[in-house]
Amino acid sequence: MTANEGPSGYAAWRLIAEELRVDVTDGRIPVGGRLPSEAELAERFAVNRHTVRRAVAALAAEGLVEARRGSGTFVAPHTLVTHRIGTRTRMTDSLGPRSGDASARLLETAIEVPPPDVAAVLGEQVVRLEVVRSLSGRPISRGTHWFGLGRAPDLAAHFRRTGSITRSLEAGGIDDYVRVSTTISARHATADELSDLELSPGAVVLVARALDALPGGEPLSVGYTRFPAHLVELDVEHVPTA
Amino acid sequence: MTANEGPSGYAAWRLIAEELRVDVTDGRIPVGGRLPSEAELAERFAVNRHTVRRAVAALAAEGLVEARRGSGTFVAPHTLVTHRIGTRTRMTDSLGPRSGDASARLLETAIEVPPPDVAAVLGEQVVRLEVVRSLSGRPISRGTHWFGLGRAPDLAAHFRRTGSITRSLEAGGIDDYVRVSTTISARHATADELSDLELSPGAVVLVARALDALPGGEPLSVGYTRFPAHLVELDVEHVPTA
Repeated sequence: MTANEGPSGYAAWRLIAEELRVDVTDGRIPVGGRLPSEAELAERFAVNRHTVRRAVAALAAEGLVEARRGSGTFVAPHTLVTHRIGTRTRMTDSLGPRSGDASARLLETAIEVPPPDVAAVLGEQVVRLEVVRSLSGRPISRGTHWFGLGRAPDLAAHFRRTGSITRSLEAGGIDDYVRVSTTISARHATADELSDLELSPGAVVLVARALDALPGGEPLSVGYTRFPAHLVELDVEHVPTA
Repeated sequence: MTANEGPSGYAAWRLIAEELRVDVTDGRIPVGGRLPSEAELAERFAVNRHTVRRAVAALAAEGLVEARRGSGTFVAPHTLVTHRIGTRTRMTDSLGPRSGDASARLLETAIEVPPPDVAAVLGEQVVRLEVVRSLSGRPISRGTHWFGLGRAPDLAAHFRRTGSITRSLEAGGIDDYVRVSTTISARHATADELSDLELSPGAVVLVARALDALPGGEPLSVGYTRFPAHLVELDVEHVPTA
C-alpha cells in the first residue's frame, strides 16, 4: 500500500473523479456549467489541490470537461444514447435520428456448440456473432449474439453486408421477431471489453441478456450486450394494460 | 503515482479482483467451484503472486469467495436479487418468497419544493421519502421517492408503520397505480450511497428512474432508486402483443 492508494485499491483522485462524474451525468452541473474551483473542491473532499487537479485532468482526458485558460473548467457537450428495450427491440432503430452516424463491425463469427445455458434454448449448433456498434466513431455496444443454425445459416454474410441483425434475418426469410425476456445488470468492464469499447480501466458497463423469439414463440436468439454506462442508458417500454 | 497504482488510479490488484468478480458473477466459476491457483492467476494476469493474493483477499473480505486451508479458494454462496420491472412494479412483491427477510427503513422525509424535473411532473409541493431496503440485513436498494402532496399527505406516517409504499398509498385511498416509464443506467456509487448501502469504494450501482401514474394517467410519483450491482439484477417484463 502507498500514500496515494486507499485500502480499497482506488487512488483518492480516482474516487473524486467518479464523484464529479456523477455531478455531471446526473445533471447537477449541466453542459456548459462551470465546475467548482480547485480550492472549493479541495475543501469539499478534504484533500489537497494536487489531488483535485489530477481528478479533473482525468475527466478532461475523457472529454467530459474542458479547461478554459483563466476562466475555469466547464462541462463539455456529451451525448447520452438511449437504447429502448421493448417487445420489438431493434438495435438499429433504437439509435433513432442519429443512425446516420451509426456503424456495426463484425469482430468474429463461428458455427459451434454454445455454452450450456444457450444450448438449452437454441440447441447444440449455433451461429455466434461478435459485434461492436459505434456512433460517430465511438463504440457504444459490444454484443455476443447466438442464433440457432437452422434458422440463420448465412447470417454472418448478411450481417457483413447490412450491418444490421434485423435486415440480416429478413434476408434469410425471418420478417419478424419479438423480445421475450431482458435481464439487466452492471459491473466493471473486463480487459477485453475495455479494449473493444475503448474504455479506461474501472469503466462501468450495463449488461443486457436477452431472449428473442419468432412471433409463434420459437426461440430465435440469445444476446449478451455490454454498453458503456457513461454513454448509454436503457429506456424500458411499458405497455398500458387494461 | 506509485509502483502499485496504475495511471488509471486503480491498483493492479483491484483490477484483477474485478476480473475475477466477473468470472464468478457470470457463472464461469459456479458456486462451490474452485478459483485457479495463485500460480495460474499470476500467469494469466502477468503479475506476481503477492498481487494475486491481495485481489483474492479483497473478494474474500466481501464474502464472495472463501479460502479453505490446504485445498484452495472456492466461490461462496451469494444471493442475486432479481427485481422485476413491469407495468405493475411493486418493490415489496418483487422480493418474492424471500420477503420474510425484507425490511425497509425511512432515512428521512420532507415536504418541500422538489428539483425542477420532478416539479414539472408532480407540482411544486411534494412529499419526499428517502428509503433503504434490506434483505437478510444487507442493503439492496436506496430509493428517493417523490409524491404530489395532495395525493399523499400522510404517506410518511403510513410508511413508518407498513414499510411499503403500496400499502401506504392504500391507506391513503390509492388502490392501484401503473408504471409509465423506467430509465436504467449504471455508475460508480457516490460517497453517500457507499455509506447507506454499506458498499466499498468503487462499487457499481444500477440506477432506475421511474414514473408511476394513477390508472387514469395522472402522475403519482417519481422514483430514483440505486441498487448495488453485485447483488441485484433487473428483469424487464415484456407483454406479448398481438
